[in-house]
Amino acid sequence: MVAHSSQGHDGSMIMEVWAPDASSVELVLDGVAHPMERKDLGKWAVEVPAEPGMRYGYRLDGGDPLPDPRSNCQPDGVHELSELIDHRSFDWADQAWAPPAFEGWIIYELHIGTFTQEGTFDSAIEKLDHLVHLGITAVELMPVNSFPGKRGWGYDGTSLFAPQHSYGGPEGLKRFVDACHSRGLATILDVVYNHLGPSGNYLPRFGPYFTNAYSTPWGDAINLDGPGSDEVRAFIVGNALHWFVNYHFDALRIDAVHALLDRSPKHLLEEISESVQILSERLGRPLHLIAESDLGDPRVITPIDKGGWGMDAQWNDDFHHALHAVLTGERDGYYLDFGNIEQLAQALKAAWVYQGAYSRFRGRSHGRPHEGASGSRFLAYSQTHDQVGNRAQGERLSMLVDENAARVAAALVLMSPFIPMLFMGEEWGARTPWLYFTDHDDPELGKAVSEGRRHEFAAFGWDPAEVPDPQDPATFERSKLDWAELQNAFHAQMHDLYKKLIALRRSHPDLTDGSLEKVTVEYDEEQRWLVMYRGSLAIACNLSATSTSFPLTGELLLATEPEFTQQGGGTLTLGPESAAILHLSQ
Amino acid sequence: MVAHSSQGHDGSMIMEVWAPDASSVELVLDGVAHPMERKDLGKWAVEVPAEPGMRYGYRLDGGDPLPDPRSNCQPDGVHELSELIDHRSFDWADQAWAPPAFEGWIIYELHIGTFTQEGTFDSAIEKLDHLVHLGITAVELMPVNSFPGKRGWGYDGTSLFAPQHSYGGPEGLKRFVDACHSRGLATILDVVYNHLGPSGNYLPRFGPYFTNAYSTPWGDAINLDGPGSDEVRAFIVGNALHWFVNYHFDALRIDAVHALLDRSPKHLLEEISESVQILSERLGRPLHLIAESDLGDPRVITPIDKGGWGMDAQWNDDFHHALHAVLTGERDGYYLDFGNIEQLAQALKAAWVYQGAYSRFRGRSHGRPHEGASGSRFLAYSQTHDQVGNRAQGERLSMLVDENAARVAAALVLMSPFIPMLFMGEEWGARTPWLYFTDHDDPELGKAVSEGRRHEFAAFGWDPAEVPDPQDPATFERSKLDWAELQNAFHAQMHDLYKKLIALRRSHPDLTDGSLEKVTVEYDEEQRWLVMYRGSLAIACNLSATSTSFPLTGELLLATEPEFTQQGGGTLTLGPESAAILHLSQ
Repeated sequence: MVAHSSQGHDGSMIMEVWAPDASSVELVLDGVAHPMERKDLGKWAVEVPAEPGMRYGYRLDGGDPLPDPRSNCQPDGVHELSELIDHRSFDWADQAWAPPAFEGWIIYELHIGTFTQEGTFDSAIEKLDHLVHLGITAVELMPVNSFPGKRGWGYDGTSLFAPQHSYGGPEGLKRFVDACHSRGLATILDVVYNHLGPSGNYLPRFGPYFTNAYSTPWGDAINLDGPGSDEVRAFIVGNALHWFVNYHFDALRIDAVHALLDRSPKHLLEEISESVQILSERLGRPLHLIAESDLGDPRVITPIDKGGWGMDAQWNDDFHHALHAVLTGERDGYYLDFGNIEQLAQALKAAWVYQGAYSRFRGRSHGRPHEGASGSRFLAYSQTHDQVGNRAQGERLSMLVDENAARVAAALVLMSPFIPMLFMGEEWGARTPWLYFTDHDDPELGKAVSEGRRHEFAAFGWDPAEVPDPQDPATFERSKLDWAELQNAFHAQMHDLYKKLIALRRSHPDLTDGSLEKVTVEYDEEQRWLVMYRGSLAIACNLSATSTSFPLTGELLLATEPEFTQQGGGTLTLGPESAAILHLSQ
Repeated sequence: MVAHSSQGHDGSMIMEVWAPDASSVELVLDGVAHPMERKDLGKWAVEVPAEPGMRYGYRLDGGDPLPDPRSNCQPDGVHELSELIDHRSFDWADQAWAPPAFEGWIIYELHIGTFTQEGTFDSAIEKLDHLVHLGITAVELMPVNSFPGKRGWGYDGTSLFAPQHSYGGPEGLKRFVDACHSRGLATILDVVYNHLGPSGNYLPRFGPYFTNAYSTPWGDAINLDGPGSDEVRAFIVGNALHWFVNYHFDALRIDAVHALLDRSPKHLLEEISESVQILSERLGRPLHLIAESDLGDPRVITPIDKGGWGMDAQWNDDFHHALHAVLTGERDGYYLDFGNIEQLAQALKAAWVYQGAYSRFRGRSHGRPHEGASGSRFLAYSQTHDQVGNRAQGERLSMLVDENAARVAAALVLMSPFIPMLFMGEEWGARTPWLYFTDHDDPELGKAVSEGRRHEFAAFGWDPAEVPDPQDPATFERSKLDWAELQNAFHAQMHDLYKKLIALRRSHPDLTDGSLEKVTVEYDEEQRWLVMYRGSLAIACNLSATSTSFPLTGELLLATEPEFTQQGGGTLTLGPESAAILHLSQ
């Protein structure tokens, strides 16, 4: 890790910044300008008396002072001066912390701004016991690094090292992680290394952080292999380590790794894995990396010593899409490639549906077999921030299908050979939407985002008036969870089912065994039933709108619709859209 | 391999073309239009009576007929109609052909247009005995697929399956390969899959062969992973197989693989390797693949079953640059990163100088250790078409340094643990330049190329008047080898040295043993001498301008300057810029 600042002599600090193209750089600290000295490879440094709490910035070639690219604190937002902080001052209570074994993780994805009414780290802490009672073992935070304004998903962040101040800043985030650990909850942070937000990104002023050699959905790509890329890579690797060291996270979820365009012989992800492995040994606790990957490439989750990038796991959209398309009947966009129960069976047995087959949505073949990877290298989910929030009206699965079907989805996710993940509110079938919301302080950009959203969905036949405006504060407010729903009988019942499913998963070793070769699936495409066998357990699903019977017998452990679940004569009868979990008598 | 045409019934042919965006496609054959039928995935087909010799093209949406993307013959140039040919009509004499073992290859790179006065395949055949007498075992042709006009290096070719007609077309190329095989010479073809030339490229009219997701030095990249890329990849893989099947080549040299931008889980090169391996088994003879790679990535030459792309070998510019910079003292461009004898020693021992170290030329770290790869996975050369022709005045090494230094280079290349390669004329220290020449038929493009060349070298301080005009026919004529030089004593002496060095390499198994761990090198940076030990042989070089002595004793097998080479008292004395090969008495 390249330190951006370090202890100097007698309470002074050595402040360092990379600005290879600048002719002069000054540190402006507490209102006083200090000329910096040029070092090797475009770095500038100066030793100054400094104290936590002081505001500072870097002045390039006599311009306005800019926030530090590696700022750890942006109390006044991404456009303003940075604040010096001392990470050693926090009083951690998690010295004895060790996360549960990765194979046993049950992940809960949440967005700090909308998880609670207050939208802060501290208010989120108050809900942690709810997660513990639910049986969750790992909490995943959507990105918390600073973004412009006060409302946002976090993927348009710009100050990569500084927790968003409106959430509670560095101290709030530390309190949150510490509170999780004190309850036995592992913590995962979503980090975005493939682009920076369109506003508040001062990095290009400092150096060649971006390249036009590749294009991404967000414009120029991060410069991972061109001139100057050593420092850009060090910046990113340093960021990954930062969250483990200074904030005690247990894992990172790395956003859209397919947009990390890197022709280096050592891909950035491999470099991150390698550095995190070394740090893990130094810290004496396991640290994990989870990728969001659309590459269909087993290399992502292959260990480094076998030529891979060494991620512990990756999100598995194939499973989601196969399940979603079967349950909803939707065939728009990427759902075009899904819809058969056979594909759902394939996803349950092999994680990936596309392992080299032609994808109509992509207009090309996609994927490659992963050959023997454990199921615990894949995350399974029926809902995520993306799958909900990227819909025009932010509908959760439980708002698209009836409650029975949502229960079947829960059973399949939580009984799957993968690492299950829930999206906040899913566990009670929340009726609040989760919409796309922004708070761009640049009015032109804000307008462009509002219009872009309407435009995007007009292409899918939406009336613009029905597409909520991302910039409208009401869109954000509507996306907040309504915890009062839990008082309602319907929601309480759904919550109870999730609790039971999770309890079953946690108590039955067959369910956390990721050996995919042990998973078998039987199904009938016409009759729309499917049975997944996992050791001594069978998970039977009726995906049709009518009752159906098929040969299966065993001790009934759990049913999503107990009153319509019957056994007799070696046959199991399931009500419409329902699932049952049986213990097989061998 | 996807056939572009195949035998139909009763002497008819099934003609097929990929044109996914066209609304109608007609085959225009022998002046008659035949509507084609749309098949799956954007392919069109029609069965017609057809005979070799007929001209044809494809008319998209009623436009002018265009040459077939997979045309095997363009008798009137790249812009005109294609000609149907029957590959079965050639009478091959090489049924019993088996190439020499790859480890023993000594490659000779030549350009058909300038190798002889006539510039044809047939006239090149007349010089093959010269190569056999020299000791060459493999002939590498610079690209011969069709390019616009009559003069060109071949890297701006556009009709990828059709040998250039001015060289002698398909029949001429077959005669050439057959003549090589009859003399025991293996054949290598240089193929360019990273771009097509700026004129005569009709592929984008047919389908998404290109993508702007990546940029290359030549503009948009070939579409290897976007929508429609299955067909683009099949086109390229089919081209690779085409040269092995229809022209009996023994190897392909794949140009600039670093510009093949491909995020697929199976990189195009791996797909080519896999297909060529299958073909090799079917044909019952070894087929080889050699990459030009600037990636510094061992994956290129790592076998497929170890996670690599399975190339047999790659060009090793690090060795060239280390040698060139030491001999010439040049430090411009990429030579900035070289110049020490230590680097030359490193190149001799490990092939790559940059295995992760910071490269000032690139402004970033470069390379990764290849861990145990054999020396025979790397080509070594002191001259290539690029290293000579990309200089403003096309000077060969023997025109930049005095003849003694050129002889030392020859000794190091031919005694190296790598596959040695010579550039045509090098073996007699030719004094003819090898310049950049073109013959663009589009006058605007021609002018742009002429001006671009002057501009490029003006940046290096060249007077534009001193930079030969690529479009001027005289530039091409001046680049032709002058075989009469061989009558001259100086040239004959150089030629004799090359013959002796090659004979020594071919007779001494220690020299073709690619085990890099057995190579040791001693050197003195100040005194500028270097000794490479290869089994029982020592190759001693004095790279200084004065005589030098160092401890070494053995039987003198060969010296570049016999009269200045002396032994006595356990010490070897070498004259200025000279080399000696000794057999060590153990």
